[in-house]
Amino acid sequence: MTKAIPNLLVNGLPAGAIPTDDRGLRYGDGIFETIKVCEGAPEFWRRHLRRLYLGAKSLKIEAPAEATLVKETTSLLRASCDGVLRIRLTRGGGTASYRSKPNLRPTRILELDAFPGYPKNASTQGVRVRLLETRLGQNPALAGIKHMNRLEQVLAAQEITEPEIAEGLMLDREGYLIEGTRTNVFFVSNGSLVTPALTKAGVAGILREIVLEEARRLKHTIEIRPIRPAEAYCAQECFLTNSLIHLWPVQSIENRTYVIGAFTRELARSIKVRAFAERGLPSQ
Amino acid sequence: MTKAIPNLLVNGLPAGAIPTDDRGLRYGDGIFETIKVCEGAPEFWRRHLRRLYLGAKSLKIEAPAEATLVKETTSLLRASCDGVLRIRLTRGGGTASYRSKPNLRPTRILELDAFPGYPKNASTQGVRVRLLETRLGQNPALAGIKHMNRLEQVLAAQEITEPEIAEGLMLDREGYLIEGTRTNVFFVSNGSLVTPALTKAGVAGILREIVLEEARRLKHTIEIRPIRPAEAYCAQECFLTNSLIHLWPVQSIENRTYVIGAFTRELARSIKVRAFAERGLPSQ
Repeated sequence: MTKAIPNLLVNGLPAGAIPTDDRGLRYGDGIFETIKVCEGAPEFWRRHLRRLYLGAKSLKIEAPAEATLVKETTSLLRASCDGVLRIRLTRGGGTASYRSKPNLRPTRILELDAFPGYPKNASTQGVRVRLLETRLGQNPALAGIKHMNRLEQVLAAQEITEPEIAEGLMLDREGYLIEGTRTNVFFVSNGSLVTPALTKAGVAGILREIVLEEARRLKHTIEIRPIRPAEAYCAQECFLTNSLIHLWPVQSIENRTYVIGAFTRELARSIKVRAFAERGLPSQ
Repeated sequence: MTKAIPNLLVNGLPAGAIPTDDRGLRYGDGIFETIKVCEGAPEFWRRHLRRLYLGAKSLKIEAPAEATLVKETTSLLRASCDGVLRIRLTRGGGTASYRSKPNLRPTRILELDAFPGYPKNASTQGVRVRLLETRLGQNPALAGIKHMNRLEQVLAAQEITEPEIAEGLMLDREGYLIEGTRTNVFFVSNGSLVTPALTKAGVAGILREIVLEEARRLKHTIEIRPIRPAEAYCAQECFLTNSLIHLWPVQSIENRTYVIGAFTRELARSIKVRAFAERGLPSQ
């Protein structure tokens, strides 16, 4: 009999539960990373870790050493496995009070999941997208961070009831387009790459970072700024990114259709190369 | 040996842990109630339940029957006990996706805690309060609901480092005063009772509801509307409310001091009467 490999570790130990007093459960007081695993190797590890540490610093949560996360991730990974590695970090357990006691021991949860079933051909033929009613509140202190306060995304995702719609786009309170419920959004408009500024709302995605780096390398003009839906409708190309899908071209937002153009295809290729190049743990 | 009375029930069973896949932990996808227990009797039970059901309906979480909550609360309560009953309700467990599968089984957590140690004489001599930097994002779809997305309150509470400051007040993104980190706020200004509108941000407290009802009964003029800090500084009296403290008069906000006037004292007395009158489970 072979020893079973756990697919979930809580503070380093195989477990499927956490105490009910965890602040992650009480207040969504934590952060998370969703990492694509290809052939047993996590993609963009360094970048995910950097964002995790940045989020932990912003929220003043004590983060585990990278060596700990590498060790635990290694024990979860199976050779040749494709899947999703989720790292969650909460402020830890404690009494019910917004104000936390100092020196709480944070809770880390590492989990290896199956890769989700996404629409076939989404990467090549693109997806249909809708504008959602649920708005994003603005808070510069939380903007960019992949934290666990996600009720706005939950409510927004409830709006998408049509099976042919793969993602919904969200506006902030001022009516600016910010992101999809689980993706960042880009437009190609008159030769420039345009993507929303995330200074007041939104999650600063790892794949967004990659796209911006690649666009810079390819000497494209980049505009990171507030975007109104009306302007988005005037763009020629549109695509979505996140760590699991990489890049999905957008066929249409509501009734507005987009071409899957050279710009989008070039960036999709670049992402593939970068994902392959930045694959693996530091020790792999 | 007497049988130990549990102080925590998860879905009706004594337990201290929940599965890591619970959406309450993943996304703060849930709601809660904090109920004062006096001599074994929960205060304002009907009102807390009404708010719980309203929140569940807004978030489309299936709520348990009142009979279930009454039964489980009864099994937690001890005669003559003073404490805090917390009811938490999450959307339940499931795969990591903002969009939830239909027919999830919600998770309910009922817990009886000791009453927290509050500053002595706060009810009679009042407390000192500060204005905090952390702002509240605006989201009408979530405003009023006592949901589990509380990172703004967590960050705000971190700002209060002075032991003599009992609470901090938070503004929304537009600079309007909304509430304390864990209290609602009221002002007496030229004979009127003034409290912030909570249509874009804030938690609609049970004690806020009681104060407004009592003020109406006492034929006071009530103004529920946006309030700027400058206006708050011009008020004559100020007080805070929540379900555990009932009412704390405010001695000062920053350097501005307030009197503990007749208006505040009268409402504090009214609350005591109402809390006594609305004590107990439907079956008690």
